[in-house]
Amino acid sequence: MKEVKNYIEKNKKRFIEELVELLKIPSISADSDYRDDVFKCSDLVAHFIKEAGGENVQICKTPGFPVVYAEKIIDPSLPTVLIYGHYDVQPADPIELWHSPPFDPVIKKTKIHPDGAIFARGSCDDKGQFFMHVKAFELLVRTNTLPCNVKFMIEGEEEVGSSNLSAFVKDNKEKLKCDTILISDTGIISNEIPSITTGLKGLSYVEVEVTGPNRDLHSGLYGGAVANPINILCDMISKMKDSDNHIIIPGFYDNVLELSKKEREDISRAPFSLSKYKESLDLSDVHGESGFTTMERIGIRPTLDVNGIWGGYTGEGAKTVIPSKAYAKISMRLVPNQTDEEITKKFTNYFKKIAPSSVTVKVTPHHGGTPYVCPTDISAYKAASLAMQSTFGKEPVPVRSGGSIPIVALFEKELKVKSILMGFGLDSDAIHSPNEHFGLFNFLKGIETIPYFFYNYSKKS
Amino acid sequence: MKEVKNYIEKNKKRFIEELVELLKIPSISADSDYRDDVFKCSDLVAHFIKEAGGENVQICKTPGFPVVYAEKIIDPSLPTVLIYGHYDVQPADPIELWHSPPFDPVIKKTKIHPDGAIFARGSCDDKGQFFMHVKAFELLVRTNTLPCNVKFMIEGEEEVGSSNLSAFVKDNKEKLKCDTILISDTGIISNEIPSITTGLKGLSYVEVEVTGPNRDLHSGLYGGAVANPINILCDMISKMKDSDNHIIIPGFYDNVLELSKKEREDISRAPFSLSKYKESLDLSDVHGESGFTTMERIGIRPTLDVNGIWGGYTGEGAKTVIPSKAYAKISMRLVPNQTDEEITKKFTNYFKKIAPSSVTVKVTPHHGGTPYVCPTDISAYKAASLAMQSTFGKEPVPVRSGGSIPIVALFEKELKVKSILMGFGLDSDAIHSPNEHFGLFNFLKGIETIPYFFYNYSKKS
Repeated sequence: MKEVKNYIEKNKKRFIEELVELLKIPSISADSDYRDDVFKCSDLVAHFIKEAGGENVQICKTPGFPVVYAEKIIDPSLPTVLIYGHYDVQPADPIELWHSPPFDPVIKKTKIHPDGAIFARGSCDDKGQFFMHVKAFELLVRTNTLPCNVKFMIEGEEEVGSSNLSAFVKDNKEKLKCDTILISDTGIISNEIPSITTGLKGLSYVEVEVTGPNRDLHSGLYGGAVANPINILCDMISKMKDSDNHIIIPGFYDNVLELSKKEREDISRAPFSLSKYKESLDLSDVHGESGFTTMERIGIRPTLDVNGIWGGYTGEGAKTVIPSKAYAKISMRLVPNQTDEEITKKFTNYFKKIAPSSVTVKVTPHHGGTPYVCPTDISAYKAASLAMQSTFGKEPVPVRSGGSIPIVALFEKELKVKSILMGFGLDSDAIHSPNEHFGLFNFLKGIETIPYFFYNYSKKS
Repeated sequence: MKEVKNYIEKNKKRFIEELVELLKIPSISADSDYRDDVFKCSDLVAHFIKEAGGENVQICKTPGFPVVYAEKIIDPSLPTVLIYGHYDVQPADPIELWHSPPFDPVIKKTKIHPDGAIFARGSCDDKGQFFMHVKAFELLVRTNTLPCNVKFMIEGEEEVGSSNLSAFVKDNKEKLKCDTILISDTGIISNEIPSITTGLKGLSYVEVEVTGPNRDLHSGLYGGAVANPINILCDMISKMKDSDNHIIIPGFYDNVLELSKKEREDISRAPFSLSKYKESLDLSDVHGESGFTTMERIGIRPTLDVNGIWGGYTGEGAKTVIPSKAYAKISMRLVPNQTDEEITKKFTNYFKKIAPSSVTVKVTPHHGGTPYVCPTDISAYKAASLAMQSTFGKEPVPVRSGGSIPIVALFEKELKVKSILMGFGLDSDAIHSPNEHFGLFNFLKGIETIPYFFYNYSKKS
């Protein structure tokens, strides 16, 4: 086991340099301006996996961005672990709030990361995290200690709903055959309190458009006499929740799996300080569904949030206009046993129903995903738990997250295996926000922990 | 009177060429990128007035954009008419909806303007309209028929609330002394049905900001647990009106002058076709305050409209973010005897009161204006009415408009004179919208009508 530490100590400078190289590519899958960069990034990922010892490395074409596949089969009778990750990143805007350019990585010390953190879009979500697996794999190969077979599947469309991965998985079941999937795209509670994510929310993401008059109008000459699509859109969004913040889309909670008293008690045992939570976000008060704690609102309750809204004049100064159209992007996070198809349909019906006759509305589904739960009594979970115990010195806490990795439910459905969500990020790493970063401690701790997972899992299986 | 027609016929080509020159300058007062253009435009306005026969032409500095002043005093014992207008224009966005560049004027025939209309930002509001006065003045001077004294005051900040004109008027009462003010910054019902605006709404324009968490957050990890400023802003905007579209800001209607049955009957006599109105805007239904007709909603009822809203991710694709902030620009149109100070204060108090404790809010007043009413029994109104009768062959209809020219109430307060709102635009001219235009018929009809006003007014006074 000393070998692991030694190898990391000797090579960590290079590990970080290679990650920087990966982070320099603005592989933003949501923005077509960056199309070439996303492709370029897939090449570099393939290169790094090959260098690390990957065999049969393939850049698999899809109708969108490619999936990088690789494998190392040392003995077909041994168990196989499939590593999943994504090399695409979120858009960087609002760009003006970054303290350093999002694609020019810098290492800075912070209060939470006294050993330094690497600041760049994608550093934590997910380039820094899937790259831990590439480096842990390199370690196992170079030190001749790989105890089982490994496959890599690193995609480029996670941030836009993994639209083509689904077909890829269905078409390549034999190639992707494995005993468990290991994913680092989540976080731990803190560097002192390790945790493993045992639940993920599903997602229904829609864009709505409200049209009033057929052209922008002068608000003096028409105000009060025609439907203002912004006012109407605000009314309609307001009608999504009641004053207790319950979502009032008909049937929204129909299939929600209600947790037992015991399960809710378990959740309340996870360490959580409401005052620290509020302080870290400069909030004088939290805001959510009545009857549930903050941890429950995040972990076990479905939610609805407007992720973007726009319409009318948004420039400097004042313009007295009634716009023809107003828009919003709205996402709903789902829990077992809701499905995104069901919820997208219920949302659409309700949104159309509450639209006044003075406007027309359009709902465009962006992408969706099914919720996921991982039991804590399966051998793969136990292998991960023991691995973290070895490197953190503490048993990790099982945690239900509010985040979504839509593809995880699909893996279960198509490949019939459970995914283990052993991530190493922190809530404060600002993923999807300006100044995203990933602690060097976390990056190196991940590389150190992953080999233990392989040892434990091979022994147990 | 044949002289008027002859002069216009002989010079109209040049009139249009000169207007085109004026329209080519993007004098957008709301956007600091166009600062130099606004100044350049004031120079050209001064040049044209001087060429037309203006004396003592001054480009008067203000803390913002200059006021162009000029005069021609032929006999101090004769009445003096002050011409007011503005050379600044609205921003041109959304620029992609223009069929020709907004500052590259083109003349095209339309269904409503078979003689052609000039398409450019500011063509109707207000460059084309104040320029009619410059050309009518030229006509009177060159044909030696000017029957009274004339003063010009053409400002460059009307579209941003005339912020510096107020001080200019207060400081220059002697210079601006006059018997009436004549303004063309409004419209007529149609080219067959002339009208004069006898009422203008006041305006309170504010920008609001709602802040939730101190940074953008991942909507999965925080959704449902912290206040989403977009959802909150929508709720707050929704709370501005009840289901009857009555504004529910406390005290909002306190000072509203309720009209008599007779006055409401007069309004209902103005020609108006609801089906044509809806058709022209592609609306299946109108939308406004219960208990009032469309004409009443526009003319005599105060209104509240969101003119712009923005927050979160508004780019291509999907981003699962809870933004730190959301914003809106909101304007309220006021009627006699509301004041903008009163309403801005009531709005601000209410907006702060309904904000939940999970967010902080900020309200920034942009600009305001007091409502205005012009009696139809004063000599200046009669002079305008007769002038239109001479050139249109029909007595113009007195109309209460929903628009605001905030400075008109100030003129009354400071200069103790009434303003006559004899405009020549059409509702369909798309002012403040893409593809703003001004009919050549209207432009030339204005130049023809204005001299009659001067003749009538000088005779009557």
